Amino acid sequence: AFAAATALAATPLVRQTDVLTVLPGTLPEAELARRLADTDGAIIMKLGRTFPAVRSALEQAGRLDTALYVERASMPEQRWMPVADVDPSSVPYFSLVVVPGDGHGRRYDAPEPSAGAADAAQGEVVVVGLGPGPDGWLTPEASDELSRVGHVVGYAPYVARVPQRVGLVRHASGNTVEIDRATHALELARAGERVAVVSGGDAGVFGMATAVLEAQEARSDLHDVVVRVVPGVSAVQAVAARAGAPIGGDFAVMSLSDRLKPWSVVERRLRAVADADLVLAVYNPRSRSRTTQVADMRRILLEHRDPGTVVVVGRDVGRAEESLVVTTLQELDPESIDMKCLLVVGSSTTRVSPTGAVWTPRSVEP
Amino acid sequence: AFAAATALAATPLVRQTDVLTVLPGTLPEAELARRLADTDGAIIMKLGRTFPAVRSALEQAGRLDTALYVERASMPEQRWMPVADVDPSSVPYFSLVVVPGDGHGRRYDAPEPSAGAADAAQGEVVVVGLGPGPDGWLTPEASDELSRVGHVVGYAPYVARVPQRVGLVRHASGNTVEIDRATHALELARAGERVAVVSGGDAGVFGMATAVLEAQEARSDLHDVVVRVVPGVSAVQAVAARAGAPIGGDFAVMSLSDRLKPWSVVERRLRAVADADLVLAVYNPRSRSRTTQVADMRRILLEHRDPGTVVVVGRDVGRAEESLVVTTLQELDPESIDMKCLLVVGSSTTRVSPTGAVWTPRSVEP
Repeated sequence: AFAAATALAATPLVRQTDVLTVLPGTLPEAELARRLADTDGAIIMKLGRTFPAVRSALEQAGRLDTALYVERASMPEQRWMPVADVDPSSVPYFSLVVVPGDGHGRRYDAPEPSAGAADAAQGEVVVVGLGPGPDGWLTPEASDELSRVGHVVGYAPYVARVPQRVGLVRHASGNTVEIDRATHALELARAGERVAVVSGGDAGVFGMATAVLEAQEARSDLHDVVVRVVPGVSAVQAVAARAGAPIGGDFAVMSLSDRLKPWSVVERRLRAVADADLVLAVYNPRSRSRTTQVADMRRILLEHRDPGTVVVVGRDVGRAEESLVVTTLQELDPESIDMKCLLVVGSSTTRVSPTGAVWTPRSVEP
Repeated sequence: AFAAATALAATPLVRQTDVLTVLPGTLPEAELARRLADTDGAIIMKLGRTFPAVRSALEQAGRLDTALYVERASMPEQRWMPVADVDPSSVPYFSLVVVPGDGHGRRYDAPEPSAGAADAAQGEVVVVGLGPGPDGWLTPEASDELSRVGHVVGYAPYVARVPQRVGLVRHASGNTVEIDRATHALELARAGERVAVVSGGDAGVFGMATAVLEAQEARSDLHDVVVRVVPGVSAVQAVAARAGAPIGGDFAVMSLSDRLKPWSVVERRLRAVADADLVLAVYNPRSRSRTTQVADMRRILLEHRDPGTVVVVGRDVGRAEESLVVTTLQELDPESIDMKCLLVVGSSTTRVSPTGAVWTPRSVEP
């Protein structure tokens, strides 16, 4: 039925390099809109009573004009027409919607002025943190900003969390091209667009805010672009909240990645933090290619801190697969740590309460 | 007219230690409800068309049953009746509502079971950060939690930020009784109530989360109470976002208060942070009684850091009177800092971009 429907569309459904997504019409409308905006071509099945929501999702995704409705493809009674012309009350279950990939780089090159950028002089980049996971941690300010931009730029899983609506163009990219991504956002803004650059957690804490300002400084032709940063809930706060109150006193936040700084700097900072008896929150403890840092960190900290120092390991906090492990520096197994973990290493006074909560007293003895 | 109306109420309007608030009926209903829930006695003036909103606010605040409507007090045509019995269409402008303070400790002692605590076994304390200022920084999760508790406990200005509704009992206190406040919340929860303890910013960052866990640990009879912490946006994130991305690399967060830790510990930590070249965010730089710490901090940091080190001073960020000053460690005037300030002292690489943004590059040279 797909092939027959596609043939009717009289245009290649997608080109070789494009993405085709087959979507059930039973998906929630917002999810459907988001996925339609994030693919080249699409087939939507399971119509009938879902049709009004499907039509609305197509409209939000800016795909209504090209979407083709196909009824009883390859059967004698087949018929087809633009989705926009369909009478919703007449749609049988055995029908499809075909959304051709336009193959003209619509989503990435020469973006058309979007709903959010009526005035070319109003282009700007707003850098937004989405919080560590659930929408319950996305601030109303961030939601509001996202509802008013014409473009959203970021690492694909974060872009995927932004609800689709009419006029929103998505620019999803990989994880390690922050500067390219930031430059692209600034260029869109210079052309008059309102652009959101999204991060997980707080965009200011190992997020995209720094990358955007770095990219802007590097290109004098982008200095006129207005950049605003919106604060958010960071992963360390989410892990701390789940554990109790481990960062209730003085604390430090470090990335263990040596991708952009030499390990000697990381080591020096670890020693200083351990020696000053600060609680330490650790981002990026490990990646696929960086596998030794957690063990090295543990060894360095043990030179200064008691083996019984409390350690919290939060993994995927805020998501369905969330886990939280409370252990000690001595017992911490570096092999148990992966990219999805954030660690909080306690100070000398951090303790586990009778109820299992990890907390750091506010009082410090001399 | 007040006195006449009060005489009609045939009960002392308020006792000597109670609070009487005179409220215009023209206030927004939510604001009216909040203030009615937060005072002992009240007089509401300017009725007429505002009456339905006033009545609704009284109901939300749990004060409708005792509120007395007084029409044309001290005039020949005067009449009075319970507010609940008044025909809204008949209310002239020259009428009043009198809300007697009950003087029986209703709000503080032996609280009645509230709407949020139908099942006595379901009592719990949820510790909630309200964000640094505007409601745009209050997460949906925090809003949701606040909408489901029967009691809200905290420092008065934070309690004041929680919307009033039927069944919500307020327990506002001063700024320096965190442990008493936390214990009171836990006792309410043990009695089956659902209680929110509120902080500004993130409750886990120099907020009430630690105080609640400290109070719980100290009293074995409170160990059974369920305590949950909800993460929020902290002041350091708000200041950082306004400035650009100063905490985009490794950073430390410290309180400069020596109320609970000796200054020698603060000094040792400042030296370690400065020596390790971490960005430093400073909470509680100064209070009315602590006036020397900022100068001391500046002197210590200057022993390790360049005089040109960038310093951001955020004051009242997120509020109407917000200000942000970018200066250097050399130029920082300790006398310009007050209780409402949060400081971010840059690392050796923190800089001001051509657009005026303060940011810390992710890359660190060896």
